[in-house]
Amino acid sequence: MTDSPFTPGATRNGVREFTREEVGLANRNSGALLETLDCDITPAGTHYLLTHFDVPMLSAPDHVLEFAGAFDAPFTLSMDEIMAQPQVTQPVTLECAGNGRAGMDPRPLSMPWMYEAVGTSEWTGTPLAPLIARAKPHDSVQDFAFIGADFGYDKGVAHAFGRSLTPQDVAELDVMLVWGMNGAPLLPQHGAPLRLIVPGWYGMASVKWLTKIEALEHRYQGFQQVETYRFRACEGDPGQPVTRIHVRSLMKPPGVPDWFTRDRWVPAGRVTLSGRAWSGGGVPIERVEVLLSGDWHDAALTGRAGRYAWTGWQIDWTATPGLHELACRATDAEGNRQPLSAAQNLGGFANNSVHRVRVHVAESA
Amino acid sequence: MTDSPFTPGATRNGVREFTREEVGLANRNSGALLETLDCDITPAGTHYLLTHFDVPMLSAPDHVLEFAGAFDAPFTLSMDEIMAQPQVTQPVTLECAGNGRAGMDPRPLSMPWMYEAVGTSEWTGTPLAPLIARAKPHDSVQDFAFIGADFGYDKGVAHAFGRSLTPQDVAELDVMLVWGMNGAPLLPQHGAPLRLIVPGWYGMASVKWLTKIEALEHRYQGFQQVETYRFRACEGDPGQPVTRIHVRSLMKPPGVPDWFTRDRWVPAGRVTLSGRAWSGGGVPIERVEVLLSGDWHDAALTGRAGRYAWTGWQIDWTATPGLHELACRATDAEGNRQPLSAAQNLGGFANNSVHRVRVHVAESA
Repeated sequence: MTDSPFTPGATRNGVREFTREEVGLANRNSGALLETLDCDITPAGTHYLLTHFDVPMLSAPDHVLEFAGAFDAPFTLSMDEIMAQPQVTQPVTLECAGNGRAGMDPRPLSMPWMYEAVGTSEWTGTPLAPLIARAKPHDSVQDFAFIGADFGYDKGVAHAFGRSLTPQDVAELDVMLVWGMNGAPLLPQHGAPLRLIVPGWYGMASVKWLTKIEALEHRYQGFQQVETYRFRACEGDPGQPVTRIHVRSLMKPPGVPDWFTRDRWVPAGRVTLSGRAWSGGGVPIERVEVLLSGDWHDAALTGRAGRYAWTGWQIDWTATPGLHELACRATDAEGNRQPLSAAQNLGGFANNSVHRVRVHVAESA
Repeated sequence: MTDSPFTPGATRNGVREFTREEVGLANRNSGALLETLDCDITPAGTHYLLTHFDVPMLSAPDHVLEFAGAFDAPFTLSMDEIMAQPQVTQPVTLECAGNGRAGMDPRPLSMPWMYEAVGTSEWTGTPLAPLIARAKPHDSVQDFAFIGADFGYDKGVAHAFGRSLTPQDVAELDVMLVWGMNGAPLLPQHGAPLRLIVPGWYGMASVKWLTKIEALEHRYQGFQQVETYRFRACEGDPGQPVTRIHVRSLMKPPGVPDWFTRDRWVPAGRVTLSGRAWSGGGVPIERVEVLLSGDWHDAALTGRAGRYAWTGWQIDWTATPGLHELACRATDAEGNRQPLSAAQNLGGFANNSVHRVRVHVAESA
């Protein structure tokens, strides 16, 4: 360990090398497979996973959700009682707030995501707001804290993973309590038996293994709310909280890969490029551009499966022999566009700079 | 890229740092979650995944398996025809031949597995040998090549993933053609609709997305058979093929983790340590020892679910305040025992040196 949050590694080809701890996290946490980007719904078992501590193996029959703190009518619900609530299913694209961190320089020491920390699932559960209302929060409530069963240490601080939302967040966001994923029961690694889904926000808000909702008459001060998931310019800066997903796009890598470099090999001729684009807060994607031979070209948008789901895109490319660097960038309906290079912040959050793909084109046979 | 197969990285705390390509592979490929080691069967969606190229999304109704080459009675089978064969289900522990590579120094440049490239599933399929016999291989056949639908480049060589087994291997190993995993249809990333399972051998032999079995009157010269998965001492050494799994054990990390270092925190007092041990070729585990306070202690073995499945073990430990390095090592019934440090080979295969776990023990409350 080092006092600096940045990697002290050597530079090779302009990129700082990675520490053993970062590689340990990359082995443990799972990125999506970019070749599945043509699926509306990320195939079972390939959704990204970022687990702060250990996955708790909880028993659904024994699990309860406790509404506690500044409520006039607090209660506790079993899973049977929760699953008897009005049921909704909706596709939601989740992305880890640290996606793209490995593209920053200097690179903060944490999970070194490149591009793959994203996925879209059909989540089944019940809206949160009516249950909060039923517990009758005091008018003085400032935050609702959502506490998971996962527990461990971060920077020497022991804590259960917890996050908060304000009463306004709960009223305005389509937050769900979720027990199903893609038509099947939630799996342990995705938060079974019960998790939060906060559509349009980065994944840290969608607390897994949810055990307690606590109404607070002050702002929640949990480690994962105030010590991390903040946009901080420097040490000592309290920063701004990480919330809504920033606009982003990815390309399904064309052709076939090289095993080690993941560079792509494509025969010369016409190739249909495709991928996905998404933004936060349910804001639609307005435009996807693809960099071909040095110029940006507009891709066709192929629609989205729901307000909080990613949008498909595609464009034809006439591949000519040689080495090409392709890229894609999205713009959302609020005019937010992906930058060409990373904006820096101390924790390495929300690097939505463009996805670049190296493609070798051979002479056609 | 470099001409050397070894990482050129700087050394930090005695460990060479990792390259961007290695981290890209670690993001893409998935290790098991060590906290699930107390499960006989690795939970759905958490089995390790090592994908050389891209996952092909194949259509089961259109899929056929072709028996070709030096057969007197070659044929082609649809998935319906294959699934009408006699059905067997057995638990098999699979391990990637590269598991432990990141513990080597110098470290070969490839997927930097630490400990997690292992899992146990209930595989459902049909024995391979009767189908090979039905196709009537010529007496002169030296190898059966098993070809997958996955295709890409490695060291500039374009190829579909392929591996071979000799007629003797097919007769002696309980090789299966598999379409089911843990009672469900095989998922695309695990080789759907049809894969090989070669119990007791490292995972590279269990070819996924199987399309063709070719009988050869010479030894198979495919890239994945002759250019890699060899124990080579130096460049130019043809080496010996990687085949049977080497004896190994892992510990379920006790207590709770630190997010970044994955060090463990345990309260003082009695702790039951547990884990898994396995060896290749169906050879049983005879002994598991655990390093506690500088001495090796015998753990109790808790049995295995099948001839090719890992064995459970457990032992009680009285944790005293301070920092401890625990370790476990297994010995199989042929007397093979895990080494304390890695044996070196050029490709970084079969590093079965002992699993070490750092544990901080706090004063009890």
